[in-house]
Amino acid sequence: MNTENKRKCRIAVDMMGGDNAPFNEVLGVSLALQQSDEFDLILVGNKDEIREVAAGKGIEIDDNSIVHATEVIRMSDTPTVAFKEKKDSSMVMAAKFVKEGKADAIVSAGNTGAMLAVSTLIIGRIKGVGRPTIGAEFPTIHNKPCTVYDVGASVDSKAQHLLDYAIMADIYAREIQNNPNPTIGILSVGEEKSKGNTLVFEAAELLGKSNLNFIGNVEGRDIFFGKSDIVLCDGFVGNIVLKLGESFLKFLKHKLTVYANQSIFNKLKVGLVKGALKKALSGMDYQEHGGVPLLGINGISIIGHGSSSPLAIKNMILKANLMHKKNLINKFKESFSSNE
Amino acid sequence: MNTENKRKCRIAVDMMGGDNAPFNEVLGVSLALQQSDEFDLILVGNKDEIREVAAGKGIEIDDNSIVHATEVIRMSDTPTVAFKEKKDSSMVMAAKFVKEGKADAIVSAGNTGAMLAVSTLIIGRIKGVGRPTIGAEFPTIHNKPCTVYDVGASVDSKAQHLLDYAIMADIYAREIQNNPNPTIGILSVGEEKSKGNTLVFEAAELLGKSNLNFIGNVEGRDIFFGKSDIVLCDGFVGNIVLKLGESFLKFLKHKLTVYANQSIFNKLKVGLVKGALKKALSGMDYQEHGGVPLLGINGISIIGHGSSSPLAIKNMILKANLMHKKNLINKFKESFSSNE
Repeated sequence: MNTENKRKCRIAVDMMGGDNAPFNEVLGVSLALQQSDEFDLILVGNKDEIREVAAGKGIEIDDNSIVHATEVIRMSDTPTVAFKEKKDSSMVMAAKFVKEGKADAIVSAGNTGAMLAVSTLIIGRIKGVGRPTIGAEFPTIHNKPCTVYDVGASVDSKAQHLLDYAIMADIYAREIQNNPNPTIGILSVGEEKSKGNTLVFEAAELLGKSNLNFIGNVEGRDIFFGKSDIVLCDGFVGNIVLKLGESFLKFLKHKLTVYANQSIFNKLKVGLVKGALKKALSGMDYQEHGGVPLLGINGISIIGHGSSSPLAIKNMILKANLMHKKNLINKFKESFSSNE
Repeated sequence: MNTENKRKCRIAVDMMGGDNAPFNEVLGVSLALQQSDEFDLILVGNKDEIREVAAGKGIEIDDNSIVHATEVIRMSDTPTVAFKEKKDSSMVMAAKFVKEGKADAIVSAGNTGAMLAVSTLIIGRIKGVGRPTIGAEFPTIHNKPCTVYDVGASVDSKAQHLLDYAIMADIYAREIQNNPNPTIGILSVGEEKSKGNTLVFEAAELLGKSNLNFIGNVEGRDIFFGKSDIVLCDGFVGNIVLKLGESFLKFLKHKLTVYANQSIFNKLKVGLVKGALKKALSGMDYQEHGGVPLLGINGISIIGHGSSSPLAIKNMILKANLMHKKNLINKFKESFSSNE
């Protein structure tokens, strides 16, 4: 079971999800196909629109790979509307391909809440996993990211859920992030055991008893400094941490633009250092990462930003392929079945 | 009651609190006294050490302003030890001056947990305030800060506490932050009313019924972009947000140093833009702000970083003086008495 998956990965791409769909999706698919032929794609969406974009950009797309969907889940749709009333939407149809074993993965830059609901309710959870979770990678001062779980799949995670996140995060780090011995911390208000809330205390007890490489509490400041490779927290906290982290680069850009506009000298100075800053802070641009995996689902599910660029879409497809190749879902299943 | 306080402010300074005490404290006190004579200082700490530092730096300190304290609360002391067993410590003695009406304010760069306990238990809460709160200012793209409450006074704030924080934050913004009509948001995982956890939903209901300028939910990304002037959250979340925010600047500096060390050209580029960045990001250096006020206490209490610089100590003293001048504690009392 722990060997690589030799079967080609079949990825159902929601072509209508992103803010700029299907434009960025078509371009992203094209980039992915240029890079690798390790996977087969099922492009789910409005056939005419997909063809039009492809023709306009001179991109050849195999007509047989397109599965026509008549509906689109909008960013404004509630997850319930999306799931119950839009059965012919590209997202729901893509999820059904995974459910029915016709695809190994779903990739979507669509409505995040809808993707969570559709993935969890249609594809279903892995047996033994209480809650699925989304992890987001933060750049650190080291040469490896710090991945925070959960960043928004739940808003009221319990201690047992944090343990579930940790088990999956540990496997994900070893298999996908090339980290053979990931350290795990619980996000709290102080390093000391005595600092935290009830969730922190209860989760620390569970993690302390596990075989995971648990190092105790970490603080907000420890994320960018990579004190642990994996940081566990309730999805409410993680979502705020993620969005605050994402906003920093934008804030920095804004401040530098204002400074540059104050004088021609300032503009020159900022111009000189722009490349330097970009390099120094590479890894902070979440667009480059592509989407985040929803772990704990009985199939691969990759959720992207609504504003995902073609590069991000490509990276989402490649991530889904890597997760398949590494047999991740089976490894999760193994781990949770031995836990029972 | 709403006029300015004409009586001179008496500030009890914990001279032994910071990591570098009493060195930074003596220098900070000297800076404050150079800038203003609007306040009287009671310098609580080891008399010999204070005198030695002052003599070494050629600083004249009125011997009568020093009150000798035999004990020091260490950073490693638990709040209980600090409060119960170190009654002759500089921090406890300074708080007692406020309790007994001999001082209007306590200022300390010492153990934060101890300052919380000492301020709350010795000086006591304002009648009607369920929980005291600490607010921290974040720089924004506008010319005014975004202040997040609570950043760590509680780890399990309830909805009523968030309303209390909002009432005090509103007065603080008007009186101290020169913001005549502060907007208030609740930190959540989405802007929509339906996004959040139980605390968010309950607090939104209370705030919606209040006379405060409540604008609904804000997200992690809205803090640096100043979507609301005041952001409310549980102290567990706020503390993580504060420490993550503080770490950005350090992370940026680290990344630029690594980049600079790669080549002489890189070093030149970074050197050129260092000043620009510093200016562009001024306001992100929390050392400059000085400490944060603990609101809801029946007296002025300013808590500083352990690593507070002399400049930070000076700013803490000036902030205490301003809060006194603006009659803040009486305004809080008025507001909470009319609430009952």
